[in-house]
Amino acid sequence: MKTLRDLGPTPGFKIVPVGHFETLKEAAELVGFRAALTKRASLDDLRDPGSNDEILHVEMVEPVPRARESAAAGRHTYEILRTCTQLCLEGKALGVVTCPINKASMKKAGYGRQGHTELLAEMAGVRSVETVFCVGRLKIFFLSRHVSLRDAISQVDKDHVLAALMRIDRSMKGLGYPRPRVGVPGLNPHSGEGGLFGREEISAILPAVEEAKRRGIDAEGPIGADSIYHLGLEGRFDAILSLYHDQGHIASKTYDFHGTVTLSLGLPFVRTSVDHGTGFDIAWKGLGNPESLVRAVRLAMEVIGGQPPRS
Amino acid sequence: MKTLRDLGPTPGFKIVPVGHFETLKEAAELVGFRAALTKRASLDDLRDPGSNDEILHVEMVEPVPRARESAAAGRHTYEILRTCTQLCLEGKALGVVTCPINKASMKKAGYGRQGHTELLAEMAGVRSVETVFCVGRLKIFFLSRHVSLRDAISQVDKDHVLAALMRIDRSMKGLGYPRPRVGVPGLNPHSGEGGLFGREEISAILPAVEEAKRRGIDAEGPIGADSIYHLGLEGRFDAILSLYHDQGHIASKTYDFHGTVTLSLGLPFVRTSVDHGTGFDIAWKGLGNPESLVRAVRLAMEVIGGQPPRS
Repeated sequence: MKTLRDLGPTPGFKIVPVGHFETLKEAAELVGFRAALTKRASLDDLRDPGSNDEILHVEMVEPVPRARESAAAGRHTYEILRTCTQLCLEGKALGVVTCPINKASMKKAGYGRQGHTELLAEMAGVRSVETVFCVGRLKIFFLSRHVSLRDAISQVDKDHVLAALMRIDRSMKGLGYPRPRVGVPGLNPHSGEGGLFGREEISAILPAVEEAKRRGIDAEGPIGADSIYHLGLEGRFDAILSLYHDQGHIASKTYDFHGTVTLSLGLPFVRTSVDHGTGFDIAWKGLGNPESLVRAVRLAMEVIGGQPPRS
Repeated sequence: MKTLRDLGPTPGFKIVPVGHFETLKEAAELVGFRAALTKRASLDDLRDPGSNDEILHVEMVEPVPRARESAAAGRHTYEILRTCTQLCLEGKALGVVTCPINKASMKKAGYGRQGHTELLAEMAGVRSVETVFCVGRLKIFFLSRHVSLRDAISQVDKDHVLAALMRIDRSMKGLGYPRPRVGVPGLNPHSGEGGLFGREEISAILPAVEEAKRRGIDAEGPIGADSIYHLGLEGRFDAILSLYHDQGHIASKTYDFHGTVTLSLGLPFVRTSVDHGTGFDIAWKGLGNPESLVRAVRLAMEVIGGQPPRS
């Protein structure tokens, strides 16, 4: 509700909050959002294309305890997500912006350890979804994500890096960058300082970058990981390939914790997301920071609009 | 010279630039710093305790080419550093603030791959010097530095982490923090998510933190590496133990590239330093950013003054 409050008018776009109407209305009152929210049972009931105040109601089939893990919350979350996905798959909505999900609740509800991305992929019937971090104007792609740091290092080989660079180039072109500039960090301190401590730069990263260049990709690297994200945020690169989960995560979230948002590529619709958790400790106290969700909504509109995303 | 220009008066402290007088004077003119710089042959010649405009001249025994690597530059750099160290060891100066050094020049001059820190340790006759990154009010210590990422992981064991926590606690108390709050990141994504990807958190980090707590240290962790630096910069921790070189480097330099400065502990005098390179590509063009050096000078004054450093 703070997001709707802070977002203001969205010319050309209609944002439809999806969730339990009465709960959202109570939240709106809590945060002093004074819009005249209306309850709609289906997208077909929407009346006003210029307003973001029509809420698509999803029934709670059982009581959902607030601000704590529960199977009921997991089931309600799933139902909301299913509703959104269905609308996108039917072409009634162009994209979905997801709030944080509570994985423990999902697990209690029987959905395993899956997060939003895995659930969306499953619902949409796609095999793999690529997660891109968006911070400032920079896009961060990941060579690997949820594997141990040791295993992540093992994945830094020439073929893997080259394939990632080709995928990034293609994805960025799809996002509206005619010739994306892609930066590649080193894996070791100071990019190994000429093989002195670590050789992945020599054996894998540089050969992959050179091969990518031969294939017409505007790639550069390896560049020291403690400089390249700064350079990217200053505008030298459009995208950076993070060589392991924390490399790009530490960079983006230390730089702008509330301003980092996620874009999912590979789904048949646009999907953006906040990159923070549910924050049960501050829930229903009016303390949540809507900045990340506001940015996620703006990012979705930019991607749907076909412009190179700026947020 | 930009640093002197921007630093302004330093009540209680006298800053003495050490270097080749005529070169520094030319640089002052280039950047529009209009102070009346005076040339002094030794510290005993200094006249005005309230001014930072008296330059301690170090002769160039041979021509030093500008803005490129050379053995001559390496030898001149060494001579300047030796002068500063000598003054500190004699008790005539309380600390030294170092500008960037060009390692390739040092190597050409026969000093191997040593940086400032190693040279200072050698000159001062100490065995090991600890490097601390200072960014915002946060201090970042390192479990390891110039080793490959793979080797850095191998060093994450309980004894090593515990020893580091005890060293940090002692060092921070020496810097004026009566009860330093020390944060410990995870090594793997999401701190391994309960052993799902990586077990160092379970086998090494958590046991070390618990043992440190039993010994009276205010340690906390492991906390996800992509959150902990943000939390530290927000004030939740006074110090963080970076588990590998790039973890803390990426955090601090992406957060505030020009505002990250280095403090060396273990020398018999205070030493701070910028954390950027010589920037030959922009040298003598008036383009250098003095912010990091200004902060390094302020940090040295704070540490000498015995206050918990704020810069």
